[in-house]
Amino acid sequence: MKPNEIKIFCPATIANISCGFDVLGVALDSVGDEMVVRKTSEKGIRITKLQGQDLPMETLKNVAGVAGLALLESSDSQYGFEIEIYKNIKAGSGIGSSAASSTGAVWAMNELLDKPFSTIELVKFAMEGERLASGVAHADNVAPALFGGFTLVRSYEPLDIIPIPSPEELFATVIHPQIEVKTSDSRKILKTNITLKDGIKQWGNVGGLVAGLYTNDYDLIGRSLEDHIVEPIRSILIPEFDKVKSEAIASGALGCGISGSGPSIFALSRREKIARKVADSMKEVYKNVGIDYEIHVSKINSSGIKILE
Amino acid sequence: MKPNEIKIFCPATIANISCGFDVLGVALDSVGDEMVVRKTSEKGIRITKLQGQDLPMETLKNVAGVAGLALLESSDSQYGFEIEIYKNIKAGSGIGSSAASSTGAVWAMNELLDKPFSTIELVKFAMEGERLASGVAHADNVAPALFGGFTLVRSYEPLDIIPIPSPEELFATVIHPQIEVKTSDSRKILKTNITLKDGIKQWGNVGGLVAGLYTNDYDLIGRSLEDHIVEPIRSILIPEFDKVKSEAIASGALGCGISGSGPSIFALSRREKIARKVADSMKEVYKNVGIDYEIHVSKINSSGIKILE
Repeated sequence: MKPNEIKIFCPATIANISCGFDVLGVALDSVGDEMVVRKTSEKGIRITKLQGQDLPMETLKNVAGVAGLALLESSDSQYGFEIEIYKNIKAGSGIGSSAASSTGAVWAMNELLDKPFSTIELVKFAMEGERLASGVAHADNVAPALFGGFTLVRSYEPLDIIPIPSPEELFATVIHPQIEVKTSDSRKILKTNITLKDGIKQWGNVGGLVAGLYTNDYDLIGRSLEDHIVEPIRSILIPEFDKVKSEAIASGALGCGISGSGPSIFALSRREKIARKVADSMKEVYKNVGIDYEIHVSKINSSGIKILE
Repeated sequence: MKPNEIKIFCPATIANISCGFDVLGVALDSVGDEMVVRKTSEKGIRITKLQGQDLPMETLKNVAGVAGLALLESSDSQYGFEIEIYKNIKAGSGIGSSAASSTGAVWAMNELLDKPFSTIELVKFAMEGERLASGVAHADNVAPALFGGFTLVRSYEPLDIIPIPSPEELFATVIHPQIEVKTSDSRKILKTNITLKDGIKQWGNVGGLVAGLYTNDYDLIGRSLEDHIVEPIRSILIPEFDKVKSEAIASGALGCGISGSGPSIFALSRREKIARKVADSMKEVYKNVGIDYEIHVSKINSSGIKILE
């Protein structure tokens, strides 16, 4: 008999990976939330527990609730669902906190309903959670959380998501300085226009990054982790960004950039040992100026959300 | 004993492949020039024969001469070279006529000197020919001619060229309407700025195209062959572009766009049979309006320049 309840791990994700602004994201393996989702005879969605973050529990104000309702509306299910959310990812940290909850809800519901929906359909439901969280139904965090590894959002209309393999030895370091950057602010300072010249550099690097991921060419991945368009603008909202980045590179990181819309900063490295050295060098920068931080080192998660126990 | 003379085939190339403006090019297999290159005790470069096109034979005014001199300047060779050029690719057609001559010269010289230079060094020498031809030392035709297959020019400073594999069943159709489009004109009408929104679409498609080439995913290749930036502007210089494109797609092409800076139009198809059907539909458009054309159907060339006989 299928269980009526599952406990899952929902990974944190890095979106806007350098050159891949708005299109490339990646899932982490050892940073994420836990959720328990239970199938009930009572219809609808109820958030019955929410620990770790101060977030609304009303279904229509909670990203997991809204994403879950989107799934239910497309389904002829006679069931409803209770959702418990145990947050480890801080809201506003820039590593996909809302995406973890949205995707966890719809992924677990799909499991408990015996998988009536494809992964791309789950992405669409989860995007409704993102719409609630940020006003924009973006897919660059929810896609890697659901597919695992790197994902490319090639197009929104129609939605076209390309999972891209992740080299075995790739590790991420993410540091979250404890300051608030409002997504609306980091959106507002973006320019509507860019030069064609910068655009060409950017799509050259996206091509290089994708090629490097397919061929396990760590050097190429590193050379391609450049962003001439968004990083120079948004990084001014993140204290000591340039210093953190230069220290990360000096410690052996392949590349370093802003995670999502910040304020977290990510670095990618070959091998865990280097990722940890990079972490130490990043910490040092914030210690020296007295800014609190959280830091994570994680393998790339190649399979996305998973069942615990 | 090494020969003192070789006869080679120099492929035509398609640059600016849709979303890959300025970065992605590909080599053709059955369209190209022939050259005979001879090592001599007399130093310097002499163009001793030039057939098929009305082009200057003076070394400093000929792209093969200039590219060859760039190689000689970096070499301590005691030899010189005589070059015979048999052009099949029309100058100004948009399928890499100058690149075929520049690359052929340096590739053959490198062979006859026992390969002192790497392929990337040959790209740099051949780019000097491109500088003579168009005023800009671009690499997006010379790179595929030398490496074969698809190539990505990830960056110019430093020059970083990534060869990308080509799916076995991929064929190109290229139609060259017999009208003149000056490169300077097609350059002039480009805008200096683009919207960030269009940029995002473009780099999403570049990522998709590269992923499709690595995974032999012909559908993905087709979906990614979009250009929201350059094609809408440059296509107005090419008569009946929209009609040729829509007929090509209707006949089964994966995608269709401007070859180089035009006026040639290329389509990519899965299998020769479809590429020939696409050719018929493209021809029909120009026949109906009374514009003369040349048309080519070719497998993708995966190895670049080759020795004949």
